[in-house]
Amino acid sequence: MFQALSDRTRRALLARLARTPAKITDLAAPFDMSLPAVSRHVRVLERARLVRRTVDGRVHRCSLEVGPLKTVEAWLGHYRHFWTGTLDALAAYAEDE
Amino acid sequence: MFQALSDRTRRALLARLARTPAKITDLAAPFDMSLPAVSRHVRVLERARLVRRTVDGRVHRCSLEVGPLKTVEAWLGHYRHFWTGTLDALAAYAEDE
Repeated sequence: MFQALSDRTRRALLARLARTPAKITDLAAPFDMSLPAVSRHVRVLERARLVRRTVDGRVHRCSLEVGPLKTVEAWLGHYRHFWTGTLDALAAYAEDE
Repeated sequence: MFQALSDRTRRALLARLARTPAKITDLAAPFDMSLPAVSRHVRVLERARLVRRTVDGRVHRCSLEVGPLKTVEAWLGHYRHFWTGTLDALAAYAEDE
């Protein structure tokens, strides 16, 4: 999933889908990129379960799936005390000393 | 930076360094991996500014740098309203409707 997030275009696609679901053609519009290229990026996001695509005839509709982002959030939880001035941070510091 | 985080071993190295700074040899100990292989992973983390390495003679000491993780945290902020039941989420929903 971090792999899927490691590309600037894919992060931009997610940001777009965070506003509303969209068709592949609409997703592609702001990018200087062919439709198949955008579709490939969407496929990477689908494999990472960050995007769901539904196909209705020729129309491919994409929507954001936030489950994996919640996982990133939970993972970050192990590090958050480093930058929030919480009691946890104080405790960790005290332990180190 | 997401690229650097996309590897399980590298995430484990960060988790270890979140406890205390460590020498490369100590970092390598729990992994079934050669010292050069661990060192390569550390180099990827260094390039992503997630780890700082100081060299003292033959001893390479590594410490965690949390700056980039704060960046991930800030980036996630754009999506957090999807899973926290905040007024923001309600507002976004109302807008969509």
